[in-house]
Amino acid sequence: MKTLTVELGERSYPIYIGSGLLDRPDLLTGHVKSRQVLVVTNQIVAPLYLERVRASLEGYRCETIVLPDGEEYKNMATLMRIFDALLGARFDRGVTLIALGGGVIGDITGFAAACYQRGVSFIQIPTTLLAQVDSSVGGKTGVNHPLGKNMIGAFHQPQCVIADTDVLNTLNERELRAGIAEIIKYGLICDAEFFLWLESNIDRLSARDAEALAFAVERSCRDKAAVVAADEREGGVRALLNFGHTFGHAVETGMGYGAWLHGEAVAAGMCAAAELSAREGLLAPADARRAIELIARAGLPVRLPREIDPDRFLELMAVDKKVQAGKLRLILLKSIGVAVMTGQFELAKLRECIEARREGA
Amino acid sequence: MKTLTVELGERSYPIYIGSGLLDRPDLLTGHVKSRQVLVVTNQIVAPLYLERVRASLEGYRCETIVLPDGEEYKNMATLMRIFDALLGARFDRGVTLIALGGGVIGDITGFAAACYQRGVSFIQIPTTLLAQVDSSVGGKTGVNHPLGKNMIGAFHQPQCVIADTDVLNTLNERELRAGIAEIIKYGLICDAEFFLWLESNIDRLSARDAEALAFAVERSCRDKAAVVAADEREGGVRALLNFGHTFGHAVETGMGYGAWLHGEAVAAGMCAAAELSAREGLLAPADARRAIELIARAGLPVRLPREIDPDRFLELMAVDKKVQAGKLRLILLKSIGVAVMTGQFELAKLRECIEARREGA
Repeated sequence: MKTLTVELGERSYPIYIGSGLLDRPDLLTGHVKSRQVLVVTNQIVAPLYLERVRASLEGYRCETIVLPDGEEYKNMATLMRIFDALLGARFDRGVTLIALGGGVIGDITGFAAACYQRGVSFIQIPTTLLAQVDSSVGGKTGVNHPLGKNMIGAFHQPQCVIADTDVLNTLNERELRAGIAEIIKYGLICDAEFFLWLESNIDRLSARDAEALAFAVERSCRDKAAVVAADEREGGVRALLNFGHTFGHAVETGMGYGAWLHGEAVAAGMCAAAELSAREGLLAPADARRAIELIARAGLPVRLPREIDPDRFLELMAVDKKVQAGKLRLILLKSIGVAVMTGQFELAKLRECIEARREGA
Repeated sequence: MKTLTVELGERSYPIYIGSGLLDRPDLLTGHVKSRQVLVVTNQIVAPLYLERVRASLEGYRCETIVLPDGEEYKNMATLMRIFDALLGARFDRGVTLIALGGGVIGDITGFAAACYQRGVSFIQIPTTLLAQVDSSVGGKTGVNHPLGKNMIGAFHQPQCVIADTDVLNTLNERELRAGIAEIIKYGLICDAEFFLWLESNIDRLSARDAEALAFAVERSCRDKAAVVAADEREGGVRALLNFGHTFGHAVETGMGYGAWLHGEAVAAGMCAAAELSAREGLLAPADARRAIELIARAGLPVRLPREIDPDRFLELMAVDKKVQAGKLRLILLKSIGVAVMTGQFELAKLRECIEARREGA
């Protein structure tokens, strides 16, 4: 087992990464304060792992809520169901919520923990690759609004993250690839060496080589933890983690939440952002091609969906948390491993780029 | 104009108290960061004061949302309407929300600001006495759940509080008295000298004597600001501000939100808490009588509603943010001006006390 620490002063917490961690009750109970626990999971994960987590909590007052699976349920109505469960069980401020699932479960559970009685503890047990390498780390929590992804939320750090790499064996192919998208992102924005490793090892990741996956999860968490430690509330450098996400969120919102997986939308979004970086003269065209090629080799979408026309796409992009005084800002690449946030791009070029990257263009 | 400061390091902010402050655009605009403003108000307050606030914001992109009035609308559905308005207007992270209204508007607007894009700025313009002396100060925000008052929320401090004492002239009698309840609370829990002043001046407050009201608002804000500065997130002393509130919240939830005003429920709750303090031998019976007598002189309810039987009342009290490991803790008085939080009371005595303080008992 590897232990990384997200360094945030009194809000610091460990990320445990390794095999067989779901059978280590000590990891879990060491971070549960009182005897009250609510495990939040979904209908896919519950039959696979819920009993093992519950078995770790013998002697605790452990309640469970099983939500439907999918981004389309990451909303206020589902959030309210968690509050109903907490109040129905009369759980007090000492309760610990456990998010057992992918990014949707982690985000909504974390937000419920942020708001219940104005803030209680929670623990992340991410069961998808995407959640292990990205969404479970860093304390961004929230739900979607019909008009925009993750528009309602809070910064609320977990007590710990328990990433059992064995669970990746039960992931379907599509979920696996979605996670690889965020792994590639770290290489592109801040870790050129990791990008080189990915170019050589992408097929091992796709084939679920245990050693390769463990390395990629640890390296991704390390990269993310460093960024979060430097800028917890996204005043600056943390925004770079959003590379590809403004395009990606537009895809998710425009296609209807759940139609594209988050990682798929981010993959196509990173290709668009790489292309725009090249069109703006920031990035060498050959490096943009390398980025897109690696994403393609991972079996991820490299094109924006035909169904969203460019005007609508721009409209959707305009609802983004990086918009400042009406001006859209994007994360672009200067080279492989170096990203910048900038509002200095031509809207006409952005439009051209969206056109050029549409399916069938 | 008096200016008090809530001392919270980088989250410190001023409370402006005085006459004619709604006609001082500088107070408002000095705390609005970008050009985007959403004023949240209700159907009672809008016809009275909305135009004056809007007039202060000439040159800003100022949108308005007018909510129905009443505690029964302090819920997730109303909260969602604020997010709809923010996203409908495409407001970004630079937006400032302005809460123009009483405690319900302040709490729900503050919570919307806490969650919109994971946190934006807001300003409190309290238009009830209760909001001026209590709910607008200290950063507690939130909404009710059908099973419990203020169970969903966040700590989120405003940029400033603008308390124009002239607005108290348009308050109805019932709202005025509800505010006096929280004023009396400060005397009881931490300010014996103020309690003495209140015993001499309660009739002036009820008659809306401008000087007396201005003094009481300032003194109350000063008392509250000191407590909040010492304990922003209610790890300890801040809980004392909840004197009478566990009983009061049970009344509000049990009778249906909006049936009793918050201040009315707190008034009856403080009488119950004073009586329990005496029954537990903590407080001299004569002092409990003085507390109840002052509350009665203010025209406030001193009895718990007949409609909630004692078993149900205890059940409602068990859903309280001060419950710890299943144990209810209450704020009790040791003397006029000195409160304590304690779980050391007999449940049988609490039950007797609820019986004894019921209407018609």
